[in-house]
Amino acid sequence: MMTAKPSKIVDCTVRDGGLVNNWDFSIEFVQDLYRSLDEAGVEYMEIGYKNSPKLLKGADAAGPWRFLNDDFLRKVIPNKGRTKLSALVDIGRVDESDVLPRTESMLDLIRVACYIQDVDKALELVSLFHERGYETTLNIMALSNVMENQLIEAFDAIRESVVDVVYVVDSYGSLKPSDFAYLIDKFKQHLPNKKLGVHTHNNQQLAFANTLLAVDKGVEYLDTSVYGMGRAAGNCNTELLVAHLPGTKYSVRPVLEMIEKHMLPLRQKEEWGYIMEYMVTGLLDEHPRSAMAQRGSDKQDRIVDFYDQLTTPEVLHGK
Amino acid sequence: MMTAKPSKIVDCTVRDGGLVNNWDFSIEFVQDLYRSLDEAGVEYMEIGYKNSPKLLKGADAAGPWRFLNDDFLRKVIPNKGRTKLSALVDIGRVDESDVLPRTESMLDLIRVACYIQDVDKALELVSLFHERGYETTLNIMALSNVMENQLIEAFDAIRESVVDVVYVVDSYGSLKPSDFAYLIDKFKQHLPNKKLGVHTHNNQQLAFANTLLAVDKGVEYLDTSVYGMGRAAGNCNTELLVAHLPGTKYSVRPVLEMIEKHMLPLRQKEEWGYIMEYMVTGLLDEHPRSAMAQRGSDKQDRIVDFYDQLTTPEVLHGK
Repeated sequence: MMTAKPSKIVDCTVRDGGLVNNWDFSIEFVQDLYRSLDEAGVEYMEIGYKNSPKLLKGADAAGPWRFLNDDFLRKVIPNKGRTKLSALVDIGRVDESDVLPRTESMLDLIRVACYIQDVDKALELVSLFHERGYETTLNIMALSNVMENQLIEAFDAIRESVVDVVYVVDSYGSLKPSDFAYLIDKFKQHLPNKKLGVHTHNNQQLAFANTLLAVDKGVEYLDTSVYGMGRAAGNCNTELLVAHLPGTKYSVRPVLEMIEKHMLPLRQKEEWGYIMEYMVTGLLDEHPRSAMAQRGSDKQDRIVDFYDQLTTPEVLHGK
Repeated sequence: MMTAKPSKIVDCTVRDGGLVNNWDFSIEFVQDLYRSLDEAGVEYMEIGYKNSPKLLKGADAAGPWRFLNDDFLRKVIPNKGRTKLSALVDIGRVDESDVLPRTESMLDLIRVACYIQDVDKALELVSLFHERGYETTLNIMALSNVMENQLIEAFDAIRESVVDVVYVVDSYGSLKPSDFAYLIDKFKQHLPNKKLGVHTHNNQQLAFANTLLAVDKGVEYLDTSVYGMGRAAGNCNTELLVAHLPGTKYSVRPVLEMIEKHMLPLRQKEEWGYIMEYMVTGLLDEHPRSAMAQRGSDKQDRIVDFYDQLTTPEVLHGK
């Protein structure tokens, strides 16, 4: 039996999937997604980034989901259902004056992503959002490359903070179930006063299995994407989790509708998922940027060359 | 830490993958596969079925890997390496007179697949192959649809038999890790004198994770396919398992060569893998035949209709 702790699914299709297509989602797409998630019983939809275009280069080319604006959101989702809205912010890219008090905002949850060395800055932002009334999470990225002493130090600051939920993030899709279990246990041990969440990537086809493992360990916040759409290998599939979490509160059919209407055609134009270059960076516990570069070049599918490049000593020494 | 028990990978690309393309593999494909598996350190290659064409309808259209013949195999693999050769047989489709003594055969391992009600017949065949000198396995299919009292009865016969290895087979790709763990524990408990194996399908993206779980539980024989090629959603990916099993005996690079040279082009012509119709039959714990029929029709990708058909009461009652 799985734990009886109440799970909360945070669908990241627009936010993480936007990393695939530069947030080029139509308003109809996002409206259909919202309706399908609401009908499916998914608790949160992460509808984009709340970064400021003033603080980011090349911002003009990106769709509106990269720089969420409350006036715009009110037009997109005039009738909000039970599904809450979430946005992600990055350290150094958020303008505090852009963030309304929650009572005046469409957003319910603001999540702060950071690397381990920026946990203090991230917690400052968390405090700000918390004071303005939002639910908050802290998402520490690239945990597979963090030394445990750094993590322990971060835990001390996090424990004392106001953050509601702390995420275990497998940014590179490199963690085997045994590694993932180890990290979750570590977070549980050091953060007994915080709820936990997980965000997985599917480089090794382990995103769903690792998420189920997290549920068994009592983790409550579970990130997913419809049809797995997310950067590179993508995320845990919403349809799989909705279909398998115990209890009767979720339905898979509305998610299947979304996949049939939007995701299958979109997958013909854009690519994500189990692709060999991404499997290789996952295997080697690396950021997928080199794999994404090769997929976008005329060397696509030359996977043996790619593997050799990443594993020859000269390249490794220059890492 | 994973268990120190020695693992043995049985690559089923030709045999299970042949269910996708009616065994239309060129001799060059099979030779390259053999070389790549041998270089990768994979212990067994299942090179096809050893059924008799006399006992099967529509046999003429299938490639030679469906009806293996030792004279033919000797030409295909003139220089056998360390990788042993395996063949699968089905109950009622094997002609005993086709099976040479192992000393005169290219094959090392013969595996007998059956449903629970045919375990006795399967064990008779196992005895025959055992007497002729082969290693043997018994693969009981569709375990997710077997009642436990039937299974316990079968265990009694299996325990007394000469079979070397008994497989836990997730034919429909429907088993969650907790279900799979339950079955493996049951097999371990009732068959303490037998080695165990697992054969998984990837309908829910759990084939690799369930195989890792089996390794943790001391299961020794692990079925895989290169790039996951197998019926419907396919199998646990050879490249993932080779890359992740502990120790230094396997190398992933030769498998990547095979994928680049043969599997990526083949995947353009034939389909297998995480496809929504197969996800739905996995979810509903059903044989994928209805999904395969829909994929081969003009209703491909109409996944909501498909889901509705399989979940409406009238259809269920007629099951």
